[in-house]
Amino acid sequence: MKPDKSSNRLRHYRIKPQSGMALTLQKGQIIRVIDVEGEQVSDLACFALGNIDESFSSGRTIDYNEKIYLSTGDILYSNRSNPMLTILSDTVGKHDLLFAPCSQEMFGSPYGITEAHPNCLDNLTTHLGSLGITASQIINAFNIFMNATLSANGKIAIEPPLSKAGDYIDLRAHMDLIVGITACSAKKCNNYHCTSIDVEIFEAT
Amino acid sequence: MKPDKSSNRLRHYRIKPQSGMALTLQKGQIIRVIDVEGEQVSDLACFALGNIDESFSSGRTIDYNEKIYLSTGDILYSNRSNPMLTILSDTVGKHDLLFAPCSQEMFGSPYGITEAHPNCLDNLTTHLGSLGITASQIINAFNIFMNATLSANGKIAIEPPLSKAGDYIDLRAHMDLIVGITACSAKKCNNYHCTSIDVEIFEAT
Repeated sequence: MKPDKSSNRLRHYRIKPQSGMALTLQKGQIIRVIDVEGEQVSDLACFALGNIDESFSSGRTIDYNEKIYLSTGDILYSNRSNPMLTILSDTVGKHDLLFAPCSQEMFGSPYGITEAHPNCLDNLTTHLGSLGITASQIINAFNIFMNATLSANGKIAIEPPLSKAGDYIDLRAHMDLIVGITACSAKKCNNYHCTSIDVEIFEAT
Repeated sequence: MKPDKSSNRLRHYRIKPQSGMALTLQKGQIIRVIDVEGEQVSDLACFALGNIDESFSSGRTIDYNEKIYLSTGDILYSNRSNPMLTILSDTVGKHDLLFAPCSQEMFGSPYGITEAHPNCLDNLTTHLGSLGITASQIINAFNIFMNATLSANGKIAIEPPLSKAGDYIDLRAHMDLIVGITACSAKKCNNYHCTSIDVEIFEAT
């Protein structure tokens, strides 16, 4: 089911380049994440509203879907093995479950950037912090539109996202959720041009 | 460098089938994980001693090693992007970074087992709990000897471990660590025969 943008859209947000936001999503509501200009990654982290010890788990999600690439019909699971979000629509079909959100320390030691650099982990922590969530609780994310390609020998490489302007993914909440979401700050992940992400929330139908 | 078992072994433990343990490892010390009978997985979780908010991160480890299969010379990183353990020796060459430790809830909903089942998450939590670590902090593990095979389309399947009796992996600590370690309880991961794991600790050299 594809939400009808004209009738049941509750909220709309624009996430500026290299920034992020947090929101709550009620059970049944749908979050649409839109790549505004194309080739832009958006990291999504989520927690059970009322129990932030329950969070999105890449490991459980890979286990129960029996795959590392999610698309329409697939389910994001929590560390408690509960369904958190189901993908309803996906105009791209390539996202990442393996990488952690980019961080200041990531840009630092391994990549040699010493000055402050915008990063998804800080952008998530800034907005989720008021809800009691700390950086050490943001271990896994669903990296929407991120295109990491795997070779048969297990080597992994970051390629430009396959998303074009206007491409989107819709996810329906299985429970009340706290969602943190970014417009990713790592140039390499976004074909060296960091742009905006739009977020729309649709009512439960 | 392969530790000389005759001269510098500090401690030895046997982890019985479907159980676990916790220990501390000083910077420079080496932990050897031995598959006693063969085809047995061992989940390893670790935390910085003195700061349990710093923990092993599969995502950072995949990022900095640029691969999902680790072996000799590769490094396990923390969520703070610091090296935690380097693999010094590895007689098997196939381990897993993608799956979360098996849990009661995993055996429950998705697999339909309703009675209590031994599981790695409980076995880790039981032993790490006295050090202040809770189940919700055990998100990622290095699943030693676990053989998950990936197809080009991203489908993943659990196959019998490649390890034979006596096979082992040695890891040297980059910092003082709390380590939780199991003999995995999930029959599917261990070719339907759960057996013991031996752990040896060698002094820093």
